[in-house]
Amino acid sequence: MNTFGQTITLTTFGESHGAAIGGVIDGFPARFPLDLDAVQAALDRRRPGQSALTTARREADRVEFLSGIMDGLTLGTPIGFIIRNSDQHSNDYEEMRHTFRPSHADFTYQARYGIRDHRGGGRASARETAARVVGGAMCQQLLTSQGISIMSYTRQVGDICMNPNSEITPEAIEANPVRCPDPEAASRMAELIARVKKEGDTIGGIIECQITGMPAGVGSPHFHRLNSMLANAMMTIPAAKAIEFGMGFEGCLRRGSEMIDEFTPGPDGQPTCRTNHSGGIQGGISNGMPIIFRVGFKPVATLLRPVHTVTDTGDATILQARGRHDPCVLPRAVPIVDAMAALTLAQLLRP
Amino acid sequence: MNTFGQTITLTTFGESHGAAIGGVIDGFPARFPLDLDAVQAALDRRRPGQSALTTARREADRVEFLSGIMDGLTLGTPIGFIIRNSDQHSNDYEEMRHTFRPSHADFTYQARYGIRDHRGGGRASARETAARVVGGAMCQQLLTSQGISIMSYTRQVGDICMNPNSEITPEAIEANPVRCPDPEAASRMAELIARVKKEGDTIGGIIECQITGMPAGVGSPHFHRLNSMLANAMMTIPAAKAIEFGMGFEGCLRRGSEMIDEFTPGPDGQPTCRTNHSGGIQGGISNGMPIIFRVGFKPVATLLRPVHTVTDTGDATILQARGRHDPCVLPRAVPIVDAMAALTLAQLLRP
Amino acid sequence: MNTFGQTITLTTFGESHGAAIGGVIDGFPARFPLDLDAVQAALDRRRPGQSALTTARREADRVEFLSGIMDGLTLGTPIGFIIRNSDQHSNDYEEMRHTFRPSHADFTYQARYGIRDHRGGGRASARETAARVVGGAMCQQLLTSQGISIMSYTRQVGDICMNPNSEITPEAIEANPVRCPDPEAASRMAELIARVKKEGDTIGGIIECQITGMPAGVGSPHFHRLNSMLANAMMTIPAAKAIEFGMGFEGCLRRGSEMIDEFTPGPDGQPTCRTNHSGGIQGGISNGMPIIFRVGFKPVATLLRPVHTVTDTGDATILQARGRHDPCVLPRAVPIVDAMAALTLAQLLRP
Amino acid sequence: MNTFGQTITLTTFGESHGAAIGGVIDGFPARFPLDLDAVQAALDRRRPGQSALTTARREADRVEFLSGIMDGLTLGTPIGFIIRNSDQHSNDYEEMRHTFRPSHADFTYQARYGIRDHRGGGRASARETAARVVGGAMCQQLLTSQGISIMSYTRQVGDICMNPNSEITPEAIEANPVRCPDPEAASRMAELIARVKKEGDTIGGIIECQITGMPAGVGSPHFHRLNSMLANAMMTIPAAKAIEFGMGFEGCLRRGSEMIDEFTPGPDGQPTCRTNHSGGIQGGISNGMPIIFRVGFKPVATLLRPVHTVTDTGDATILQARGRHDPCVLPRAVPIVDAMAALTLAQLLRP
Repeated sequence: MNTFGQTITLTTFGESHGAAIGGVIDGFPARFPLDLDAVQAALDRRRPGQSALTTARREADRVEFLSGIMDGLTLGTPIGFIIRNSDQHSNDYEEMRHTFRPSHADFTYQARYGIRDHRGGGRASARETAARVVGGAMCQQLLTSQGISIMSYTRQVGDICMNPNSEITPEAIEANPVRCPDPEAASRMAELIARVKKEGDTIGGIIECQITGMPAGVGSPHFHRLNSMLANAMMTIPAAKAIEFGMGFEGCLRRGSEMIDEFTPGPDGQPTCRTNHSGGIQGGISNGMPIIFRVGFKPVATLLRPVHTVTDTGDATILQARGRHDPCVLPRAVPIVDAMAALTLAQLLRP
Repeated sequence: MNTFGQTITLTTFGESHGAAIGGVIDGFPARFPLDLDAVQAALDRRRPGQSALTTARREADRVEFLSGIMDGLTLGTPIGFIIRNSDQHSNDYEEMRHTFRPSHADFTYQARYGIRDHRGGGRASARETAARVVGGAMCQQLLTSQGISIMSYTRQVGDICMNPNSEITPEAIEANPVRCPDPEAASRMAELIARVKKEGDTIGGIIECQITGMPAGVGSPHFHRLNSMLANAMMTIPAAKAIEFGMGFEGCLRRGSEMIDEFTPGPDGQPTCRTNHSGGIQGGISNGMPIIFRVGFKPVATLLRPVHTVTDTGDATILQARGRHDPCVLPRAVPIVDAMAALTLAQLLRP
Repeated sequence: MNTFGQTITLTTFGESHGAAIGGVIDGFPARFPLDLDAVQAALDRRRPGQSALTTARREADRVEFLSGIMDGLTLGTPIGFIIRNSDQHSNDYEEMRHTFRPSHADFTYQARYGIRDHRGGGRASARETAARVVGGAMCQQLLTSQGISIMSYTRQVGDICMNPNSEITPEAIEANPVRCPDPEAASRMAELIARVKKEGDTIGGIIECQITGMPAGVGSPHFHRLNSMLANAMMTIPAAKAIEFGMGFEGCLRRGSEMIDEFTPGPDGQPTCRTNHSGGIQGGISNGMPIIFRVGFKPVATLLRPVHTVTDTGDATILQARGRHDPCVLPRAVPIVDAMAALTLAQLLRP
Repeated sequence: MNTFGQTITLTTFGESHGAAIGGVIDGFPARFPLDLDAVQAALDRRRPGQSALTTARREADRVEFLSGIMDGLTLGTPIGFIIRNSDQHSNDYEEMRHTFRPSHADFTYQARYGIRDHRGGGRASARETAARVVGGAMCQQLLTSQGISIMSYTRQVGDICMNPNSEITPEAIEANPVRCPDPEAASRMAELIARVKKEGDTIGGIIECQITGMPAGVGSPHFHRLNSMLANAMMTIPAAKAIEFGMGFEGCLRRGSEMIDEFTPGPDGQPTCRTNHSGGIQGGISNGMPIIFRVGFKPVATLLRPVHTVTDTGDATILQARGRHDPCVLPRAVPIVDAMAALTLAQLLRP
């Protein structure tokens, strides 16, 4: 239930306002020189309170590794880690003990389990994704060592879309708090987010992910396709509502003659695609082209304005959210998309 | 690799031009009165040669059950079945032995396995989905017995979209060969498909799926969310390139205040949503509203016109497809979406 | 439920008196030259009616492969196969429709599923193991290609134990119908089985298995130990009641100083054990020595004499078995131990 | 690799001399009132330094729960926990950095991973089982709430076997440090262990486990049999080398007429066995009788006398163990057998 993956697995645990969140990574290859500072740096990218665009909550989010690593090398044994919770304004959530926040998981958790930790969303809080970022950052190091790189970035916020021809580099993505590699669009996105925040509202958008360096022949047809595995992984991210590969929905409305990726002999004698409408995947298996997909994130459901809802005794009520919330999840979701992509691809590495 | 599901599992096998395709369904509850004619009828919906809109290939596609059923009741033991292959024009494919069809899985299979059955796509052929339809039809009977119904239909072909206010019933869907419940749009879609076919081209589109009767509280947060499980399932269907839930990508570009699904007290004391922008899922768990998602299918890659490609020795060549192919997969993909939805939801039934 | 393994999986289906039994092997490496005659030969070793020592039932037991193999090479895709049932004296079993045979799975199946195929044990029949022998024989070819050999043989029947210093070769094992490599003991075992049969009784015994050529370092500590995986596999064989590794129970009663396997430098610079009390496994991982274990098989529960039992309406009754049964399962269980050992070890091959 | 179970899973992590060991229990039912003191008490039964019979190492072994529990009730979310390591005489192990202890997992870990934490056995240390005891104690509470009880006890140490007719109660088991319910045998076992310890030697033995209250119909035939699941679980315990069910190996040497468990009408109209030679399992499914099995534990391989071994550079050497070790694992293995039995049976509870 709370384990991702089959060869390299990540099991996560922890409620938002419990003692700690954490996880166990199992199946990670032995003798790999892990850069633990880089793992912490990835976690810092997800951390609340990074910029004016994100929630004012401040959590140190220091990861403590408990096992599986000796003298900087992985042992091949499970790697346990915890992140202690702190800065918990649990009282902010007291009124949510009996009230279901609309478009949150409060009611559905209650329906599923008959009980829930109401404080800050409990287990349903996006705080759980911190453990994914730890596991993802470890897998990303493994992928990098094999020449595979993952770059996610904010492509669109509301109606503001980046120029698709922008140069995309890690530096360009990290150059602004929106994590959009097009600086001009990024600036307008930041303005939009600030405006929306001031209005007590929130806004959604689209994150794009590009994976390069993936050799042809990775993925399994049928039930473990590269695209089904990535779609599964992305739809496990809170607030993700849609995913498309390559030309996506738009390409699905076109003719075959427009969408076919014809082959041409490649430099190594292997076929290379003249175009990449398929987004690097054919028949569920990588074809050697960059893998490209986009994930839609709905606007945050916590509005700083009154909303209609119902209590756990079935009475109508008005909820006025307090607490500190993100007006737009995308900047902090970028490292989560990176993490889930890395966790997914790491499953497929040949040992 | 070729097994779907964890509680009720479907394992499929078979190449398009081998002796047979088939599968094993395991974990199906005991003492369930299976309607085997209904299973065959579902298979007939997927069968080639149903109408002028689909490939002229004719396959009897008779399913033979080998085990797990006695006197019309399931035994709780694995249910094995086979569908013998027939009408195999294997010679049609001889020239594909050494040539990779662009935007097909020929090259990626070769890169993955170092070998492939080139005849009719071999294992990569959509023929494999016949086994899914058998398993899906069985699961659909199980779901129906619990009051859960699944309806998939063609929503859009090329730029022709159905009227979203059309009444959607199984009869309306089955009333035309496109499987679109809006008869007027269906007629224009059929024309478009016929025109495209005449041009030796193909066309893609969007299938929508509505699931009703699902109680609140189904699905598991984190790594087995209802939406991640459905996204995974749908992206395992050949030619599927995109999926979105509820308001989908469009909703992701809106404000939180537009997208929030406020609660109102329901007739049974449970909260009910005033709107269904979320498509029936919150936090990965059903909220009692209809579950709605859309899947984009790319246009078929086999064009009846010359295309550039490469042989398995790395030489450029021109491929002129022969054989019999669908100009649009959507009419036959509708029962596959039904099947994969049913297989997915059946995982979640309380025993 | 009916799938064995995680990397190379075998899913089996089929009731003893249904249309067919069969299975699917998935994850088998591509481009492996399978010797299908050798698979059939393995199946023939398990077949009833081989000798006077086994049941008089005669089943052709011809395996038909349906997929996953082309021109003698595996495709990397799932390999489906069926074995049609024949020679079914279903009427022999009519009185068992409502009567539970003692020490069989009739009652426990009924308790588990609320339904059962009473004919010949249905799914609980050891006939299901024919599908395992098919999968095991395929895996054994894979292991042989990597220098790993498996030899199982009857070590003890009743109180007759082979000379443990006998030379053990495939030829010696196959030289007599008991499958005991000690010809003198084999002869006495055969006499004992014949005598027991004449008395309408049955007899159990012990099968030993030796695995050679397994390199050091195979197996995973903790929950996928080589010994736990083998114990699991062996205890899935019908009638298996006990397993021990190396010196087994007897060694457990000794002192550490008697049981320690001291190391000496081996020819390749690796440590070699001076003794093999551990049976080739330490900490759940192979140490390069032969892996040795013994499996105890209880006597067949079907006696040709009246036994007390109860009907499915709870009434006491006397059951007089008819039908044709083995007085001793060991000769036919030997290839099943081989098969389960091969299926287990094949999980652990480095790809 | 380090996860046990499929419905209720336990994932463990941690090296003997790392920062902490711990685990995650997932799939545990929601709203269960966990008695955390009872969990700690179970852990205390496994703790070193309990009596003169066990190692002098003293570890506080306090379990800290990090998630999944609120106000004494389980949340249905994963339950993370850690046990900090302490009292680590890591220097005791310095000479083992380059020397393989015979009959330990030092060499096999090195062969498997190319690296190992040499301190105190690292991950291969039986210390890992503390995490299993935590998970097992939780599952045992669940089983108890359903009327299922598990009792393990030392049956034999060296050649001293308990009187099999002794009354077996939790109190009798806990009345002496050997955990043998026969006080007279326990006293002789304690003497034997003390004598062996004085000689710098060790001794093995047999633990028996009785499970009562298990209804008929639990377990799945074929690859998830109750006996195969229990055999698998028990063989994952360090030093376990053998397992037998019911009459075990001895019963396998007998005639069918001696071993058959005839049925008689039970009080509830269900068949009841007149005898329990099968140990409560038929066809892999419980038959309502007590489940009985015995596990053989080899003598501890660490002797306080010089032994021949080899260094990691392949040189012969003499190893003189220091450190503090158990002369006999059985007293501390009893709660581990309890734990693994509970973890196994908890998989099979109907939700």
